[in-house]
Amino acid sequence: MSEPEAAPGTPPVSDIGRMTGFSDGVFAIVITLLVIELQVPEHRPGELLHALLEQVSVYVAFLLSFGYVGVLWLNHHTLLRLIRGTTVGLNWINLWLLLGVVIILFPTAVLADAFAHAGTDRDRQVAVVLYALAAAAMSAPWLAFFAYLRRHPRLLGEGLDRAFVSAQRVRPVVGMALYLTTAALGWFVNPILGLAGIGVMILFHALTSEGLRRWRTRRRMPA
Amino acid sequence: MSEPEAAPGTPPVSDIGRMTGFSDGVFAIVITLLVIELQVPEHRPGELLHALLEQVSVYVAFLLSFGYVGVLWLNHHTLLRLIRGTTVGLNWINLWLLLGVVIILFPTAVLADAFAHAGTDRDRQVAVVLYALAAAAMSAPWLAFFAYLRRHPRLLGEGLDRAFVSAQRVRPVVGMALYLTTAALGWFVNPILGLAGIGVMILFHALTSEGLRRWRTRRRMPA
Amino acid sequence: MSEPEAAPGTPPVSDIGRMTGFSDGVFAIVITLLVIELQVPEHRPGELLHALLEQVSVYVAFLLSFGYVGVLWLNHHTLLRLIRGTTVGLNWINLWLLLGVVIILFPTAVLADAFAHAGTDRDRQVAVVLYALAAAAMSAPWLAFFAYLRRHPRLLGEGLDRAFVSAQRVRPVVGMALYLTTAALGWFVNPILGLAGIGVMILFHALTSEGLRRWRTRRRMPA
Amino acid sequence: MSEPEAAPGTPPVSDIGRMTGFSDGVFAIVITLLVIELQVPEHRPGELLHALLEQVSVYVAFLLSFGYVGVLWLNHHTLLRLIRGTTVGLNWINLWLLLGVVIILFPTAVLADAFAHAGTDRDRQVAVVLYALAAAAMSAPWLAFFAYLRRHPRLLGEGLDRAFVSAQRVRPVVGMALYLTTAALGWFVNPILGLAGIGVMILFHALTSEGLRRWRTRRRMPA
Repeated sequence: MSEPEAAPGTPPVSDIGRMTGFSDGVFAIVITLLVIELQVPEHRPGELLHALLEQVSVYVAFLLSFGYVGVLWLNHHTLLRLIRGTTVGLNWINLWLLLGVVIILFPTAVLADAFAHAGTDRDRQVAVVLYALAAAAMSAPWLAFFAYLRRHPRLLGEGLDRAFVSAQRVRPVVGMALYLTTAALGWFVNPILGLAGIGVMILFHALTSEGLRRWRTRRRMPA
Repeated sequence: MSEPEAAPGTPPVSDIGRMTGFSDGVFAIVITLLVIELQVPEHRPGELLHALLEQVSVYVAFLLSFGYVGVLWLNHHTLLRLIRGTTVGLNWINLWLLLGVVIILFPTAVLADAFAHAGTDRDRQVAVVLYALAAAAMSAPWLAFFAYLRRHPRLLGEGLDRAFVSAQRVRPVVGMALYLTTAALGWFVNPILGLAGIGVMILFHALTSEGLRRWRTRRRMPA
Repeated sequence: MSEPEAAPGTPPVSDIGRMTGFSDGVFAIVITLLVIELQVPEHRPGELLHALLEQVSVYVAFLLSFGYVGVLWLNHHTLLRLIRGTTVGLNWINLWLLLGVVIILFPTAVLADAFAHAGTDRDRQVAVVLYALAAAAMSAPWLAFFAYLRRHPRLLGEGLDRAFVSAQRVRPVVGMALYLTTAALGWFVNPILGLAGIGVMILFHALTSEGLRRWRTRRRMPA
Repeated sequence: MSEPEAAPGTPPVSDIGRMTGFSDGVFAIVITLLVIELQVPEHRPGELLHALLEQVSVYVAFLLSFGYVGVLWLNHHTLLRLIRGTTVGLNWINLWLLLGVVIILFPTAVLADAFAHAGTDRDRQVAVVLYALAAAAMSAPWLAFFAYLRRHPRLLGEGLDRAFVSAQRVRPVVGMALYLTTAALGWFVNPILGLAGIGVMILFHALTSEGLRRWRTRRRMPA
């Protein structure tokens, strides 16, 4: 609605209302569809309890991914608070970012399957590496988002500048490096170790989501 | 948008717009996905009616859970009217609360399955207890929400104070106790009784959802 | 936000923002999930085209229900424009109304199945009657909505009064009667005729959706 | 809310808030449901990696359609920025437009199936033609949208006129022609060529989405 006036030749800026609504919709669906992996197990009459307890790995994969998507939503929430308008270019980067969110459903299903059923160690290695690589690839659009903001500072919210945006880039770079490390651990050392590494990574993102906001507050206040 | 000024060191407060939109999305998807349990029954030609009538337990589980999610949405609606801003901490508690909402799809499916098909009494006990335990566990984040508000009264909406928030805690505590009682009834006495208990519990939440608002109105008016 | 002041003892009125967002979410999911009935047909190599053409009844059921949910959304859109606030009671009626919208996925699947596969005429009768009864039952919450508005005129938008609301009740009553007639036709005369009747009914709702708004305009203008 | 005053006899104009929210919901669900085509492949123990690599065609169909729905959302975003209000007629056209968006899930599944499994060349031709025809048909409601705006210029946003709307019609017409060409290529020449053509088409829409906005900007500025 309130479009900051554009210099001739620059792409027009629009309100972030629809970008926000669309993104929230995608996050809400992904975080809900995760539960579809929780199926009523096939079982012989009278053995429901036993069958439920046997699919523990499915519950772990579900909780892991619920936490992950939740953290991604929190980070996205913080991300969009940095800007006061969007352009076609930024909308594209946001779509790329959502691609990463949507895709996570697939490695989650592969992970749950490999650890649940007749999976061999080799299959588990493959599943852990797939999950970690998908998570690492998911960092790329966040970098692109910050890079775009650096080139278009007029999109930044009040009181934010390029130096602040540059500082934010540390997180996705560190995230990418750690996920690749996790993939290597899971492949060359032990798939269970890789799984644990993924859990640690999600925790890291959760804690730095808080951190990102702390930094922001600190910036605003006279030191 | 309109951020209440924060004292140094306290987490920044943000608008509840996205928290609301995201939560509504999750509630809308969960309440709709419940219908997926309603499958066209396999049947011999000409016996569709018979086959439809045979899966009554599936319809009951669907209606029970539709009512439950509906009540949860109404309560969440009332809950968010208490606050005028959110923080990262409150966003986390809200995610935890949504985890409970999303998970309900799983015990619902287990319940429908156990009462429909080849389920033995033991399987039905397991299904009722699972449902009741999930519902009891779901009360925890509501308690955490109220506890957080008590510690951060600046998030409270106009005219609300700590004493009011404390009074609200009665409901989830009572709910948790009653669900655990229901689980015990379903396991030690009779699964059908447990099922009835769940229905009563949802009704209790529906009535106290109204109650919560009554209290609120009363508070506002000079007695 | 802007709460009309309530007389003591009346339920508090809240903004319709969340009611609208939640309802739109449910409508969006239902109208999209309809497409899940469109499955890639099993077929022998080289016979995909033949297999696609064979499931015409599935496409018809999909289009019928897409049109139906679309019309329901338009009507709901018009309905919520009548009010300027909501209460717990009206939220409950809205949930009941959404139950009808969500449930439609089930009779749609039954209809598609009965006309597609090994369905006998008896199965098709059952499917048509189930669809028509579900549609007739769906009119009840609309009546309840109007009845509630008549008893709580302070919820009505500017320039609307009880007489206007009373006039709106004609439509769900007529709809209910016609759906029951359709069910009878489908059962006692011919299932195909019943199917055609359902199509006519959806058209009727589509046209009176426009009609409802026309009336509204007429009311506003000096005759 | 802010209704432009209507001349007697013209349909009433309403706020586009719900049209936007409902559309965003549909787009969000469709773009997320695409991932459901990505299934954990059945495989013998130890052969997960091999099985994952074998379903490359499924990944291509997923990415193709993710890009497509993303582009459609961007175009819809631009489309709704042209208007400042909606009518029942425009709501109908928007529903028709969403029908095209929802349906895309079906040809995507057919395409993935035909190129993945036991599909013969004939099946692949059928799948490519189905996808291209669906995409071509999807252009019709966009034309209807522009035609409606030409007849009801009072719905246009500030600074936009009929001549501008007429210019926009070029894109869906060109799109329709190119999709039909692609269908012919896929059928008479080679299905792989048709698949490539679809990819090119989506790119064309992506680039002209940007173009549409450029034009708009240019219009606003004194040349």
